[in-house]
Amino acid sequence: MYTLYSMRRSGNSYKVRLALARLGIPYKAVEVDILQGESKTPEFLAMNPSGQVPLLEVAPDRHLAESNAILWYVAGGSRLAPEDRVEHAEALQWMFFEQHSLEPNIGAAYFWLCLIKGGRELQSHALEDWMENGYRALTIMERHLADHRYFVAGHFTIADIALYAYTHLAEQCDYDLSRFPAVRDWLDRIAAEPGYVPMDLQPEPLVAAQ
Amino acid sequence: MYTLYSMRRSGNSYKVRLALARLGIPYKAVEVDILQGESKTPEFLAMNPSGQVPLLEVAPDRHLAESNAILWYVAGGSRLAPEDRVEHAEALQWMFFEQHSLEPNIGAAYFWLCLIKGGRELQSHALEDWMENGYRALTIMERHLADHRYFVAGHFTIADIALYAYTHLAEQCDYDLSRFPAVRDWLDRIAAEPGYVPMDLQPEPLVAAQ
Repeated sequence: MYTLYSMRRSGNSYKVRLALARLGIPYKAVEVDILQGESKTPEFLAMNPSGQVPLLEVAPDRHLAESNAILWYVAGGSRLAPEDRVEHAEALQWMFFEQHSLEPNIGAAYFWLCLIKGGRELQSHALEDWMENGYRALTIMERHLADHRYFVAGHFTIADIALYAYTHLAEQCDYDLSRFPAVRDWLDRIAAEPGYVPMDLQPEPLVAAQ
Repeated sequence: MYTLYSMRRSGNSYKVRLALARLGIPYKAVEVDILQGESKTPEFLAMNPSGQVPLLEVAPDRHLAESNAILWYVAGGSRLAPEDRVEHAEALQWMFFEQHSLEPNIGAAYFWLCLIKGGRELQSHALEDWMENGYRALTIMERHLADHRYFVAGHFTIADIALYAYTHLAEQCDYDLSRFPAVRDWLDRIAAEPGYVPMDLQPEPLVAAQ
């Protein structure tokens, strides 16, 4: 059985939990609170030198990092991972887009505005860039979703899961999605997928920056 | 035959040219000067709404963006793309790391310091972060390369190509690699691979910011 090191309030961690739930794959979850430095201990760094969650143990003492790589690993051979050569590449394209253009902006805004006490003030110099670049990514998604129900292959895939995680947090961290009706419809469509599980967003106190 | 839209001095474009050269795949290259706005024309945006190079035409009117997705597409079925399930995922892991942790830092420093006239002054507020985060990524690579000759699978793969592009530009944009002997040895190893082609770095005048 897989062991997944993740954090409840991490969007990248949520991607993997959402995929495993949809696939019906049981796993052992280990909560790692990165806000308390638990991903920077010598023990954790020995498993993942990047000091990040999620992290999946794929064999004894062999650990896989990077949420989108983990999605490909767990979904391989299922309908969530397109096999057609072009569709496979298009799924990868959107997942690299997610890590390059969406997550660094909406993910950063979510982290500092929603998880860290005083984060808005600490990061006020960066917030404008996150907003501008996050809206640019949302605009590209909106244009695609205007005539596609899902990102790739005409059905729900790990590309949707990768993009969903931070997009569905955007309204909590200052982004106004009213300009993005196709994105909002797609968010509703994903939440209605079989096997969908919500991100665990129970209110918890904000944490001071480490 | 593939048509590749790329820019000679773009590290992301270079990845694809390096892979195609190694694979011995002929292609038609179309130079797109992003510094002159050529990737923001209506015609180009119709092919790639992200307005970025590289871009590969994989079928008539069907275009694939994101350098690392293109690498998987062109290298699929070759020894450059590991087929073993864990090694495949590990290659993806390093390629997402590249787009998330290396390229946004060394790539940004390269762009503003090496290509844009006055870029150092324009981006002085960001340079310190790019340096700190770039060194952090290099440290993770150094640790891995201390006991691996290549990033994945024990031989040269598209994970090496993805990481090579901006790492081999680091010394041109203020990074000091003397602290990273394993990275330097690996850079030399890649440059000695069969089919290696250098990035086209002929001196050209810096361009004013658009």
